[in-house]
Amino acid sequence: MIEDREPVRVALLGCGTVGTEVLRLLRERPAEFAARTGAPVEVTGVAVRRPHKHPDVPEHLITTDAHALVEGDVDLVVELVGGIEPARSLLLAALRSGKSVVTANKALLAEYGSELFAAADESGVDIYFEASVAGAIPLLRPLRESLAGDRINRVMGIVNGTTNYILSAMDASGSTYSEALEEAGELGYAEADPTADVDGFDAAAKAAILASLAFHTRVTATDVHREGIAGVSAGDIAAAQGLDRSVKLLSICERVVDDDGTEAVSARVHPAMIPKSHPLAGVNGAFNAVFVEAESAGQLMFYGQGAGGSPTASAVLGDLVAVARNLVESGKGPRESAHAQLPVQSMGSTPTRYHISLDVEDKPGVLSQVASTFNEHDVSISVVRQEGRGEDASLVVVTHVAPDSALRSTVDAIARLSVVRDVVSVMRVEGESS
Amino acid sequence: MIEDREPVRVALLGCGTVGTEVLRLLRERPAEFAARTGAPVEVTGVAVRRPHKHPDVPEHLITTDAHALVEGDVDLVVELVGGIEPARSLLLAALRSGKSVVTANKALLAEYGSELFAAADESGVDIYFEASVAGAIPLLRPLRESLAGDRINRVMGIVNGTTNYILSAMDASGSTYSEALEEAGELGYAEADPTADVDGFDAAAKAAILASLAFHTRVTATDVHREGIAGVSAGDIAAAQGLDRSVKLLSICERVVDDDGTEAVSARVHPAMIPKSHPLAGVNGAFNAVFVEAESAGQLMFYGQGAGGSPTASAVLGDLVAVARNLVESGKGPRESAHAQLPVQSMGSTPTRYHISLDVEDKPGVLSQVASTFNEHDVSISVVRQEGRGEDASLVVVTHVAPDSALRSTVDAIARLSVVRDVVSVMRVEGESS
Repeated sequence: MIEDREPVRVALLGCGTVGTEVLRLLRERPAEFAARTGAPVEVTGVAVRRPHKHPDVPEHLITTDAHALVEGDVDLVVELVGGIEPARSLLLAALRSGKSVVTANKALLAEYGSELFAAADESGVDIYFEASVAGAIPLLRPLRESLAGDRINRVMGIVNGTTNYILSAMDASGSTYSEALEEAGELGYAEADPTADVDGFDAAAKAAILASLAFHTRVTATDVHREGIAGVSAGDIAAAQGLDRSVKLLSICERVVDDDGTEAVSARVHPAMIPKSHPLAGVNGAFNAVFVEAESAGQLMFYGQGAGGSPTASAVLGDLVAVARNLVESGKGPRESAHAQLPVQSMGSTPTRYHISLDVEDKPGVLSQVASTFNEHDVSISVVRQEGRGEDASLVVVTHVAPDSALRSTVDAIARLSVVRDVVSVMRVEGESS
Repeated sequence: MIEDREPVRVALLGCGTVGTEVLRLLRERPAEFAARTGAPVEVTGVAVRRPHKHPDVPEHLITTDAHALVEGDVDLVVELVGGIEPARSLLLAALRSGKSVVTANKALLAEYGSELFAAADESGVDIYFEASVAGAIPLLRPLRESLAGDRINRVMGIVNGTTNYILSAMDASGSTYSEALEEAGELGYAEADPTADVDGFDAAAKAAILASLAFHTRVTATDVHREGIAGVSAGDIAAAQGLDRSVKLLSICERVVDDDGTEAVSARVHPAMIPKSHPLAGVNGAFNAVFVEAESAGQLMFYGQGAGGSPTASAVLGDLVAVARNLVESGKGPRESAHAQLPVQSMGSTPTRYHISLDVEDKPGVLSQVASTFNEHDVSISVVRQEGRGEDASLVVVTHVAPDSALRSTVDAIARLSVVRDVVSVMRVEGESS
């Protein structure tokens, strides 16, 4: 009988929204978890900072001494504290004393992932982290395992719900960034201090994790080029709509191949226009979705809820079952694979495309001046739309792919042209060929 | 050095489109596979029926004696033969002699899955089968592993590319079923004998596999209620368009809860109308997508290419790396989980919704006669649209959820009403609440 087997003893670090849900499900469905794991799963301790804030947690489980808990009589540590410290020290202590780990801590993994993986490897234990990216969406396991026999060329995702909510609202109602941010705050989609979301820190941490898995290369959050959405104007959104495109904050991880065949990884977070026909364009509100292009598999998309207590608990519990089963079966999950060790490319030399919207004087020779500026910077033009409005004219240019630094210099040079009255909008273009 | 480790010896059964691609990638990228597996991966034999048809396979690898190959000096057998025999005997022989198995054989798994799982369990080896459903889309691993801590309530998917191509073509061009089938054949999207696809056998085998994994219950292809698309008329498609819906052939696996709380599984394949706003409605042509609803995770969708040599090879190789790594690490993947053993519900008692389009006489009292027929069968009406056209009228009814048998009897009774001239279209409705 499964019930008679030695239980897998679980320590829970942190008991907020996600932890409460994890604890509830483990305690309400012991038979299901035992059947899926091959042994009973028993929570033996819950470490919190303020015990009186957790009246629903049985008193005998609660402790404020997280270090004693992870180094004590447990097999598996679930970390839901978040942030760098004390999470990092706790997990290193757990791994070094032979405990397997399940964590949802993207910031920690994006910065200290290799230290944690090395500690897990030395002790021969598991570290699983599906919940760290895109909440409930099974994404890391597919990248790490299902596509292990393929070659991934590109991962492009909407992995931050707050910014997606804001951009969706701006697109739907024509509101400004500040108005949409305020609304998101009122509805609980944005935190009191929204910096981590709107400035792209959250998306960059996730991009680092995705790039590491997809390209078998160590990529940290500081390797990721990061631009947030605070600079996205109602004009940018309108310009996108005029070209049948949507503006999304994208986490992009790409295998870039030089002319001489040298491979590198580009990892970046920035707002970009994508065609309305792209599967990611229809991902609105707080939903997340990740688009993957692999050599053999072709195009794949994963879609679902990226945050929230229940969805994140689902991902944590899926990992918990996998790790617990490995403990019962004396198996081991996949370890860190950084064998490819590709260099990380700078943003300046990363090939991108720009959409540029200008107010120019409506007189002969303007287009030729603008066009020759592109030409001087070796940037080739894909689409031009000029519309006269009497004294001035609106000029929209979409480029072909060129190094990002060349595109930036082009924009700077164009802004200095006397015939250019205003650079209305500059936005990268993704999700279409050439 | 990984290169110096004992290699994982792989036998390949069958070398068609998928097998050729698997062999090519394994031979062209030995370092990548070694790094991901932890040991070199070596193909030691390829069993085919007609050796002269495979000039690209090195002669020393080719054999026509598949049984000798699987029982010989190999660690892992990849089966890409398809069909029931000899695949079944070969895989049982392989598993019983301690070889792990990777297979893409949906028909075999849907019928003899539990026999194979039992054999794998007895020998303590792995059987993986990601490629058997939805080609390259990582779907079985997420269901089997990522959602192992969740409770799945519904899996609804477009898992057959041929029928989706035909229905998409009918929707786009207004062509009849026969015209669209002919076009699909000419373009290579339908086989010379399209029965397995258009009559829903392929989708039913996949539904059985999905239901088994999602509900921890043994479901075979014969448990799956099956209706194909040959009866879908241009009128059905037009009726769907009139209500802003699309017609799709859906594989549906559902947890059904009776009034008294008893749980059962419904597994069925049939064409149905879904709202154009549903994520599955936009899945066109030969693409596949599967929509999953889980208690904690909420709604998830997986999208990608469901067939073809390269996409299927990607799924096979992902499994191959996982199984090979288990061999190197002395680990073991998840075994069959049928602990819930829920009963399979008959189609008649499964709750569904119908869309019914009628030609009726345009005179007083017709609607009341039709409505009371619904009432007599305890079927409640959600939407009615009547449009007079002189002598006759068009009447569209969408019901609320009712047992399928009650809905069928209602349609039969309505067809017998003297005021009803023609039952133009009857189609189930999925993907919306109530």
